[in-house]
Amino acid sequence: MKKIERLREELGRRGLDAYLAISNTRYLAATTAAKAVIVPADAEPVLVCSRLELERARRESRIRDIRAFSSWRAPLQRGERVYFLELWQLLAEVLEEIGARAVGYDSGERNFIRKIRRCHEASYLWSPEVMQELRMIKSPEELKLLRRSAEIAVLGMNRAAELIEPGVTELEIAAEVEYRMRRAGSEGTPFPTIVASGDNSWLPHSTATSRKLKEGELVVVDLGAIFNGYTSDMTRTFAISPNRRQLRILETVKAAQRAALRKIKDGVKAKLVDAAARETIRRAGYAKFFNHGTGHGVGLEIHEAPSLYPSSRDILRKGMVLTVEPGIYIPGVGGARWEDTVLVKAEGHETLTC
Amino acid sequence: MKKIERLREELGRRGLDAYLAISNTRYLAATTAAKAVIVPADAEPVLVCSRLELERARRESRIRDIRAFSSWRAPLQRGERVYFLELWQLLAEVLEEIGARAVGYDSGERNFIRKIRRCHEASYLWSPEVMQELRMIKSPEELKLLRRSAEIAVLGMNRAAELIEPGVTELEIAAEVEYRMRRAGSEGTPFPTIVASGDNSWLPHSTATSRKLKEGELVVVDLGAIFNGYTSDMTRTFAISPNRRQLRILETVKAAQRAALRKIKDGVKAKLVDAAARETIRRAGYAKFFNHGTGHGVGLEIHEAPSLYPSSRDILRKGMVLTVEPGIYIPGVGGARWEDTVLVKAEGHETLTC
Repeated sequence: MKKIERLREELGRRGLDAYLAISNTRYLAATTAAKAVIVPADAEPVLVCSRLELERARRESRIRDIRAFSSWRAPLQRGERVYFLELWQLLAEVLEEIGARAVGYDSGERNFIRKIRRCHEASYLWSPEVMQELRMIKSPEELKLLRRSAEIAVLGMNRAAELIEPGVTELEIAAEVEYRMRRAGSEGTPFPTIVASGDNSWLPHSTATSRKLKEGELVVVDLGAIFNGYTSDMTRTFAISPNRRQLRILETVKAAQRAALRKIKDGVKAKLVDAAARETIRRAGYAKFFNHGTGHGVGLEIHEAPSLYPSSRDILRKGMVLTVEPGIYIPGVGGARWEDTVLVKAEGHETLTC
Repeated sequence: MKKIERLREELGRRGLDAYLAISNTRYLAATTAAKAVIVPADAEPVLVCSRLELERARRESRIRDIRAFSSWRAPLQRGERVYFLELWQLLAEVLEEIGARAVGYDSGERNFIRKIRRCHEASYLWSPEVMQELRMIKSPEELKLLRRSAEIAVLGMNRAAELIEPGVTELEIAAEVEYRMRRAGSEGTPFPTIVASGDNSWLPHSTATSRKLKEGELVVVDLGAIFNGYTSDMTRTFAISPNRRQLRILETVKAAQRAALRKIKDGVKAKLVDAAARETIRRAGYAKFFNHGTGHGVGLEIHEAPSLYPSSRDILRKGMVLTVEPGIYIPGVGGARWEDTVLVKAEGHETLTC
């Protein structure tokens, strides 16, 4: 429950009595069964879920105060306690009970928060950055899951490497790779697996099509696993009898990644890591073919803070986990990207996807 | 482009000059590359995407006016046109260009819309129901994709049926089922595949764990495919040497589903379909063990309108696609659910997952 304690400290600093988490429930409650978690500054957290999820929430979460709601009257089982209320009504009741005057919250449609406010008068402050900052620094427990997720991604990539050859379709490779990861305990893929060959290779967000791999092309494989909710992200680019230009692109992205990785350590500006990759690519004459950022944080979501791009204001801190993934995409020639998920350390970094 | 035309008609009826779609971009643009689509009431639609997605948007969407943005200045390729703006700035510019005075929109954080308004003065009306109503009625083109998605789900379920036996783990079954669907062209799963055996079977939203199947238990398999973005949803409950109570639960959910399906036709209230299933289960003495709604609409999202539950106000219409999935979950005994994805017809329905 370290996360809850860290959140409470932050509430104290900000003068908030409670935090209403709607989009960060899995982070706080370690289950996907919760619809909301209310964390008071000085009382036990409350997990709110639909009646349907009550038993699962009990099994999966360490939060003990669990309240289930149902928007319609239904017969109950012996010992089953359910609030026959809408979600917003139950949330307002809990906030009333703890007497919260200043409530931070992470998301929620305008009308939803308005309804809660009408039921429990307080000041409601949209403050998603509270959760974002907490989530950027991974706990030892989270790191264990992220490491396993990264290991599974590597198994998937090894499978891809076995299969790459002319005549195989992108879709076949994706299917085999995902199957390998699933058998190893992955819960699914955090994004559609990319197997981008030939003229798909210069689309940074291609998926996997029925296109067959051919001689003389680059094949970008970008994949990830999910382990206990925690994601990983890894890209390798394979070359099938490449020409000299294709090889040069490939070598440049690898060099750009090395340059970026060398910059990583506690306290460094994210934009300097991006700049190192970008400079390597610029010097090779490919500046205009690198059209995205150098990386992003990874956790329960595949894209979270921090962000590595030229105008980023983020500072890297020990305990952050992020991707480093420069790419070069030249229409008519080929695309290449080289990506690992890494942990920021006091001095330097540790690559998790290796 | 029928969808755009139908949206335009609706804009006319509501006195809106334009609609800003942020969470319905795939529906309108047939690509995941768009960050937003602006549909003016009387001009061509505009697709807005990040620079990174420009080429993919061009290949995938039928919208011709595509504008890419980049939040930082970057060298451009020959002929590449990019707005060096933030997303909200570019959206405001487009709205300014078409002179929109009344703009509907489907989502967007409070600050985001505020920033657009500051840049282009107009009245902005949060109206997600505009898109929701359009999306409820499927076009013939959408139906083709939904049919294929449902067929793939059936292939997955057939694979599960082959594998169910004592000693196999839930995870192994999920892995094999997903692999089967992926090979058949599914892009992934619209929700984590459920293989819920033994004491997992009475958790309606269990997933697939390393638990081994045993004699004397029910196994709920709930799965879906995604084909060109369109989802499907299907549940079967298998019984391994069941006892009489387990068999009775299983027969009751099947009877409840038949009762609900018999009610479906154009014009019927969704809550009456729910009531038919609920009444069958009540008569069998299991009312308190059916703790969720009877079904939901299916399309690009796995849960969309309409909703089938006791207090639903939705009316079923020809061309809607929805699930019918009564369930009974008795702690200590077993859980069962029986679900198909069906198309509402003028008279009756057609089951797609068969």
